[in-house]
Formats: sequence, C-alpha cells, structure tokens
Amino acid sequence: MQELQTFIREVQDFPKSGVVFKDITPLLADHKMREQALKSLISLVPEKHIDVVVGVESRGFFFGTLLAAALKCSFVPVRKPGKLPFETLTQVYDLEYGQDSLQIHTDVIKKGDKVLIHDDVLATGGTAKAVCDLVEALGGDVVQCNFLLELSFLNGRDKLNGFNARAVVTY
Amino acid sequence: MQELQTFIREVQDFPKSGVVFKDITPLLADHKMREQALKSLISLVPEKHIDVVVGVESRGFFFGTLLAAALKCSFVPVRKPGKLPFETLTQVYDLEYGQDSLQIHTDVIKKGDKVLIHDDVLATGGTAKAVCDLVEALGGDVVQCNFLLELSFLNGRDKLNGFNARAVVTY
Repeated sequence: MQELQTFIREVQDFPKSGVVFKDITPLLADHKMREQALKSLISLVPEKHIDVVVGVESRGFFFGTLLAAALKCSFVPVRKPGKLPFETLTQVYDLEYGQDSLQIHTDVIKKGDKVLIHDDVLATGGTAKAVCDLVEALGGDVVQCNFLLELSFLNGRDKLNGFNARAVVTY
Repeated sequence: MQELQTFIREVQDFPKSGVVFKDITPLLADHKMREQALKSLISLVPEKHIDVVVGVESRGFFFGTLLAAALKCSFVPVRKPGKLPFETLTQVYDLEYGQDSLQIHTDVIKKGDKVLIHDDVLATGGTAKAVCDLVEALGGDVVQCNFLLELSFLNGRDKLNGFNARAVVTY
C-alpha cells in the first residue's frame, strides 16, 4: 500500500543523530487514509476470530484500539513499568545498550485466547518479542504481530522467529 | 451511565499512598461496554461537525482514536516533551509540587478548526487546561473537553473555567 507512505513523515536525526524517524502522525491526522490503513492491517490478520488485541505503549495504542473495535474484541495495553495499576507480569528485554522492560495486567488474557499484537513499527524486534513472551506466559496464543511499518534493514523479523509478523509497508 | 462504573476498577494507593486510582483497563477489555462508553462520549459532544480530536498522552489515546474514527475527523496526539518528532509548541503547567509540560505538533490544527479534546479522567484540570491553551495558541476552537470520568472533589472544572467540560461518569 504505497499511498500510505505519503502520509509517513521522515524526520532526520530523531530521536538521536543519524536516525531517520518514521512519523505516523500525518496518517493519524487524515481520516480517510487512517481508515485505509486500518483496513490494510485487518486484511493481514490470518484468522477471523480474535479474542484480544494487545497494543504496545504508546504508539501501538492508536491503531490497537481501532483494531479491537473493528474486530469486536478486547483491547489490552502493554505498558512501561509502573504505569499499570493492578497485578502485572514483567518482561525484561535487551536494547542496543542496556535493558528495558514492559508490563501487562495478569487478568486480561485467558488460556487459549487468540491474541493479535499491534505496534506502529517493527524495528529491531526486541519490544515485539517481549510482548509475545508476556502473552504466551499468560497462556495466550499469539496469532500475529502486526505493524504499520517494518524497517527490514534492522532485521527485527529474526528476533520474532516462530511468530507470524506482518506489516502494511516495508522499508 | 452507572453501568460503566462496574468496569472501572478502583486501585488503592496507586500511584502513591492515599490515592484511589480509577483504572479503565477493564472497560477497554470489554468490547460491548467500550462501545457503550464511546456512544456516551459522542452523545456529550455539542456540535455535529468536529475537525480534530485531540487525545492526551497516553490514556487519552484509547478513546481519542475511537472518537476520531466515529466523528470521521483528524486525530492529533498531545504528548509529553521529546516524544513528538516534528515542530512542536510547548505548554508548561503547574502541578501540586513543581511543573510539567505538554507538546503538540504545530502543523496539525488550522485556524478555526473545531476541536474536541479527550482524556480519560478530569482530575485537577491542569493537564486539560494546558491542552486547551495549546489548541487555542494554534488558532483552534475548543468545542469541548470530554472525559470518561470526572473526579469532582478535585475541582478540575474550576481550572477549565470558560471551556465546555463534560464527563460520562462523575465521582
């Protein structure tokens, strides 16, 4: 879906020097193209029935909630530590330098639930893999990790080995 | 809409001792009640035509995107400093102790745009007032600040004096 790319703004040297950031806010700002992108995301999903959409903090919340509404299912946020108020499960994962972690509420996924994970961008895959691990630890079945954009030169797919990963646009 | 309250979990002593946090994640997890809540939010909006829904980081992103989809309009995130990659406008506001600030992209609201501001909870009103100021500084017309919940004992409405503020459930 090449037309979508015209609504992805490339910002040089953000968040740090040498990085070209893919900014999805022009897409969010355009109702028609946002609807198109949502349809494209849904067309990637391999199963008709999804129980839970997991959206990753915080840019995964935008299309995550829209996907849950379209698929008529539960929406569950995965957040950075200390943001979720109830009982949580934590997954630590490696960054280029150091570590980070993500949390999910423990009461939001039942054993056998069909789970669709959504984030805006697949980059190195560390975040998405951590979310897959959280979902599986709660007994959920990861049907797919879906993304608006994939930065294929960062080889995030390698880290998601064994999980179905799809993106609307690949760079 | 009292039924909605059964999907708002009260968590004692979060994020700090003495605070009873209103957790909307059970509402997000229930498709039917989430749809009901969205309908209730829309029923509060006093104008048929809205150009832009502004959602406040990050719990305002959930229903903010859903509102923009339902109202067939633009969605614009207001974020904490350093998160938005393009040219931003910043508003500093007072907290109980110290200050905080919020940013909006400068290219997302045109002069005269009808703007609906959404966040999950109206507490002290400091955040919502800062967002109103950002929208007005860009020339937007704040039609309403709407919220799922209002904690009326914190008198946030006083700070929003002059702006239309509505909530689905008031505590």
